[in-house]
Amino acid sequence: MTSSCRVVALSGGVGGAKLALGLSRVVPGDALVVVANPGDDFEHLDLTICPDLDTLTYVLAGIDDQTRGWGRAEETWNFMDSLRATGGETWFALGDKDLALHNERTRRLAAGETLSAITADVTRRLGIAARVLPATDDRLRTIVETEKGGLAFQHYFVRERCEPRVRGFRYDGAATARPNPAVLEALASSALEAVVICPSNPYVSIDPMLAIPELRRAIAAARAPVVAISPIVAGRALKGPAAKMMAELGVAPTAAAVARHYGDLIDGLVLDAPDTGIAVPTLVTDTVMTTATSKAALARAVLDFARSLQ
Amino acid sequence: MTSSCRVVALSGGVGGAKLALGLSRVVPGDALVVVANPGDDFEHLDLTICPDLDTLTYVLAGIDDQTRGWGRAEETWNFMDSLRATGGETWFALGDKDLALHNERTRRLAAGETLSAITADVTRRLGIAARVLPATDDRLRTIVETEKGGLAFQHYFVRERCEPRVRGFRYDGAATARPNPAVLEALASSALEAVVICPSNPYVSIDPMLAIPELRRAIAAARAPVVAISPIVAGRALKGPAAKMMAELGVAPTAAAVARHYGDLIDGLVLDAPDTGIAVPTLVTDTVMTTATSKAALARAVLDFARSLQ
Repeated sequence: MTSSCRVVALSGGVGGAKLALGLSRVVPGDALVVVANPGDDFEHLDLTICPDLDTLTYVLAGIDDQTRGWGRAEETWNFMDSLRATGGETWFALGDKDLALHNERTRRLAAGETLSAITADVTRRLGIAARVLPATDDRLRTIVETEKGGLAFQHYFVRERCEPRVRGFRYDGAATARPNPAVLEALASSALEAVVICPSNPYVSIDPMLAIPELRRAIAAARAPVVAISPIVAGRALKGPAAKMMAELGVAPTAAAVARHYGDLIDGLVLDAPDTGIAVPTLVTDTVMTTATSKAALARAVLDFARSLQ
Repeated sequence: MTSSCRVVALSGGVGGAKLALGLSRVVPGDALVVVANPGDDFEHLDLTICPDLDTLTYVLAGIDDQTRGWGRAEETWNFMDSLRATGGETWFALGDKDLALHNERTRRLAAGETLSAITADVTRRLGIAARVLPATDDRLRTIVETEKGGLAFQHYFVRERCEPRVRGFRYDGAATARPNPAVLEALASSALEAVVICPSNPYVSIDPMLAIPELRRAIAAARAPVVAISPIVAGRALKGPAAKMMAELGVAPTAAAVARHYGDLIDGLVLDAPDTGIAVPTLVTDTVMTTATSKAALARAVLDFARSLQ
């Protein structure tokens, strides 16, 4: 089934999902495999919530809210408003439509299905042709080490609004997590043209996946070039705390720092403006994806660049 | 706290809640104790749902949908629509607002709180002055014995639309269930003026509570008269399957049959039109509650009638 996989994209949430959508426009059907970061997943209100997986699902299905940048389009918030009135926890906003996916997933996980199987079924029902795969079905959780102690990612990101200074990261469960077999199969595909590291936060969107030893080895061993797109544009992250984290860790927020971060895992870097001190080949192009056209254009440029590195 | 209880009302859902609302207009504050039928409660989509308790809560808080007759006013259905799209079970309609109560309750039950404590907190937050008490915190489930076998109540009522012919009823857990201590305390109140059996379905709304031996004994031992309001009006149930059930059990659907059903537990019956063969005193009055005024008027008439029986 994945022997025909041409592109594997590793992605976090919003920024990565934009490129994943662009890739889905230029790589037909299940020749595109999108691997979702599981490090953000968490349990809340007795629900298993997978923010990056869900963002990818909504974006690829074309039912995401493009103004807000997360969650579903034409969402309503009656559950949340009523929960507030009955005294529940409301720091993590759950829309009424969004909630259906969490409820269905939680129920099916409890019934013994794997996250991969549930995701495959849900994405098929929502009409997504690409394959969306959680990096692992095992438990893997990003802990942000801060001046206030270790915080589960969503607690850091949403509840604490990324305010506590970051000291480092821990990926609980990664060392023993088994990669999703379908991801390994895709990476071993003879038709593979590129492994794309989407413009996602290196620390909390990509590293949780790379911290799975067998997955990292499989990426390194893939016959196709590994190309990363810098999430840092003009010294800032377009979305999220990547630049703030880099600064707090004493790293200048530049595309070169992103390249150094990935080290010899990548064969090329795509970035917005020329930068110095990058050890791998680079492609300088507009990486800000504001329209459907610019998403597909970047996807095409990334794949052409990968082909040139072959 | 309940030593000042003046009226205890046993209630199922819609019909009973109308009278409970009327009673709350004429019996101030926590002098009114409304005891909710737990037999309809069920687990669905990993949520503990208490339909009668919730209907009472919404009606008494004034946030029920009066047109539909169940659930919350100005409800939206985005959760349900999205659940359908992702392949979930949708035979039991759960509104987005309604869902908040189920989620909050399920979470708190799992954390070890009792249904009574959660209900007390939720009803207080929603501004309900009367005390709403589940008849028991133990598991009690009505099973409808039908030609198609035993069906959990909501499966019979909603999923099968009351179609299978009824042969009898079972109240799983009732024999060993401990009554809610606050209900026993209310029934023992020296200020008690009436125990009201609301115009609810005798088999599936009231009997599940009467099947708790200690609760039945406490009702029989209460110093105040026990008055039932017939849910059968002109040979029909205003709402729900009571008349259909009676017919299928070979019982003519009349107010007299309701009186015989409750036997010597009741001291009086309130009904819509004169009927023969009723062994207890009766009050004939309009029992169809279409307006707030008629609900309070019936409540007043029922309490006056009870007083006359003292």
